[in-house]
Amino acid sequence: MAAQNKSRAGDLHLWRNARLATMVEAGLGIVEKGAIAARDGVIVYAGPEADMPSASSQGAEVADCEGRWITPGLIDCHTHLVHAGNRANEFEMRLAGATYEEVARAGGGIVSSVKSLRAASEDELVAQTLPRLDALMAEGVTTVEVKSGYGLDLENEQKSLRAARRLDKERPVTVRATFLGAHALPPEAKGDKDAFVDLVANTILPAIAAEGLADAVDGFCEGIAFSPEQIARVFDKARALGLPVKLHADQLSNLHGAELAARYGALSADHLEYTDDAGAAAMAKAGTVATILPGAYYFIRETKKPPIGLFRQHGIKMAVATDNNPGTSPLTSLLLTMNMAATLFGLTVEECLAGTTREAARALGLLGQTGTLEAGKSADLAIWNIERPAELVYRMGFNPLHARIWRGQ
Amino acid sequence: MAAQNKSRAGDLHLWRNARLATMVEAGLGIVEKGAIAARDGVIVYAGPEADMPSASSQGAEVADCEGRWITPGLIDCHTHLVHAGNRANEFEMRLAGATYEEVARAGGGIVSSVKSLRAASEDELVAQTLPRLDALMAEGVTTVEVKSGYGLDLENEQKSLRAARRLDKERPVTVRATFLGAHALPPEAKGDKDAFVDLVANTILPAIAAEGLADAVDGFCEGIAFSPEQIARVFDKARALGLPVKLHADQLSNLHGAELAARYGALSADHLEYTDDAGAAAMAKAGTVATILPGAYYFIRETKKPPIGLFRQHGIKMAVATDNNPGTSPLTSLLLTMNMAATLFGLTVEECLAGTTREAARALGLLGQTGTLEAGKSADLAIWNIERPAELVYRMGFNPLHARIWRGQ
Ligand SMILES: [Zn+2]
Ligand SMILES: [Zn+2]
Repeated sequence: MAAQNKSRAGDLHLWRNARLATMVEAGLGIVEKGAIAARDGVIVYAGPEADMPSASSQGAEVADCEGRWITPGLIDCHTHLVHAGNRANEFEMRLAGATYEEVARAGGGIVSSVKSLRAASEDELVAQTLPRLDALMAEGVTTVEVKSGYGLDLENEQKSLRAARRLDKERPVTVRATFLGAHALPPEAKGDKDAFVDLVANTILPAIAAEGLADAVDGFCEGIAFSPEQIARVFDKARALGLPVKLHADQLSNLHGAELAARYGALSADHLEYTDDAGAAAMAKAGTVATILPGAYYFIRETKKPPIGLFRQHGIKMAVATDNNPGTSPLTSLLLTMNMAATLFGLTVEECLAGTTREAARALGLLGQTGTLEAGKSADLAIWNIERPAELVYRMGFNPLHARIWRGQ
Repeated sequence: MAAQNKSRAGDLHLWRNARLATMVEAGLGIVEKGAIAARDGVIVYAGPEADMPSASSQGAEVADCEGRWITPGLIDCHTHLVHAGNRANEFEMRLAGATYEEVARAGGGIVSSVKSLRAASEDELVAQTLPRLDALMAEGVTTVEVKSGYGLDLENEQKSLRAARRLDKERPVTVRATFLGAHALPPEAKGDKDAFVDLVANTILPAIAAEGLADAVDGFCEGIAFSPEQIARVFDKARALGLPVKLHADQLSNLHGAELAARYGALSADHLEYTDDAGAAAMAKAGTVATILPGAYYFIRETKKPPIGLFRQHGIKMAVATDNNPGTSPLTSLLLTMNMAATLFGLTVEECLAGTTREAARALGLLGQTGTLEAGKSADLAIWNIERPAELVYRMGFNPLHARIWRGQ
């Protein structure tokens, strides 16, 4: 793709001779002979090249896409990308036959991630996170959500979110930071979940909010984590502070997390393997996105699939994300995640592509800014060496990205 | 990794300050403070740096590995890498609810790959294959097996294998070519499997052998492909021509393909989901390697796993490969394949790493030349940015390769 014209007025770019999957509304929004023009990083035209007003591109820097496909830049809307160390040792132990108890006795489990994170400096956290972020970006990701949740005290949750906030200074990418204090119980809480939830809701969250470190608040509602009542206390505080919420819900059992999320107008409820009809109905009514995380399902060998049929029936929007984390989804490929969503859960190609663009943007509250190719949105593009969009879902372990454009560059 | 000393005698290389997983015999063969010296592309020393005879490295070009891990270069011992087009459209149709019959009526299935391959020139085949080969090599693959089997007539099988033979002229990699004439029935055979097998055994195979186009002969023994008796006719001819055999065996049903392979002293029997105790016993006696192909199992949503416990019980060596092909395993990551072997079939980290190095070399009859780090073998190395070998199996969609060395370069 050669730049044909280096003279330009303002910061004007044109990608021409492309096939577009605009992802605007249902379907892929295919434009066979398409062009996109952007001024100062914002799309001013996306559509048929023949219909483009000449003013949209006069003096632009022109890139000939030679028939390549352009999709919106991909969005990974659920990650725990900021973490320290990895848990390959546990993985190895379990394959060698160790039980969960033996792994725990050897210092494994989420506690080991908490320990590693607390021992790492903010600089170290950023340095360890960047290779994972680079892997996502190498496949066309232009927006990524990053959660805290391995710090579990004020200082370390702040450190995690400050590290998340630094990622978009280090790389050309949009980062949304989510406070996930109610993720797990730290050792010093000595089993007292209620006291820890008080600490999260009344001390840590207000300080995080005051520093502007979080764009949203998340929780883990599960028998092994926190009850709906405990999560509700965190969500009440989030609401009081004006922060939107989302929830790890119904992954391993049905505690009616989907309904809880819906009750608070959550941006998304995530995992959802055990969600029932009442949960789906509540989500539909609230407009809460269902974020599907097949990497965790695959990695921990779950057998209960999320009720995709119910979500379709209720018209619930579905996002698809990596859930990158060291314990249950050490996954840094959103393309592979799409393949898993299709292969393991039967999502269609269209659902997979919408789930990593338009619906992922919706799940982050960013649909006004990115996630589709249309005038007024950020010029976040992925340009692909493929013959049809389905190839992005069909292949495994192959990266056909030709170029990634973030805010027009 | 800076080259510290550019002066050298002959073509002598030294990698020092490394951690080695030599993969010699059982276990990973770990050497914590290791070094490897190679002269003219052949390893002259691999072991503790402190024990290295000074003559091994005098005047060598030295690379400081800064504590990184070195494994043997990875080996993908079962691929259909040479093919034309892809079958993303079928994948898309099936996800949208189409039946196998509807896909077939739309021109899908293996027949579509045969049609695409026959329409492609040898140059086009090479050009389409190189990106897939590059994806494998980017993860440290130094040896790859490539099968024919989409040509299904003399001219197109020759074209496929000539394309395979050209790959190692285009890239620094070892390629082993396998003739897989008995793969599927071409349309012009009009359902007459016996007549087609005669053509393969008596006309195509001798011509392929005379031109030196194949290093081994393979077949697909299955209800939807060829019977054990038909495969035996092809194997008899291979034996007469002095070519080793291997077999796609017991993937979808138990036709006793493992025993058939063993009876012919096959290098490997591959897939093996339905292999029983008698089959495993025969393989063990013959020294036939079990090649495990989790990508196909995953992609076509099989539920019957290969009997890994039986293979262990019988002391059968296991290789792990991508089975890269457009219909049932569009997979070009051997790292991801290891993760699938562990996650889906419960192979240990050691089995996964042996399966893509030492045992994969054995499955290709190349164990004397590559597959472990020891003196006398080709200096085929993969140097990794990891803290422990288990990370190569644990992560999904992440490539920690630092450098790939093929024949010392
Ligand atoms: Zn999560
Ligand atoms: Zn195969």
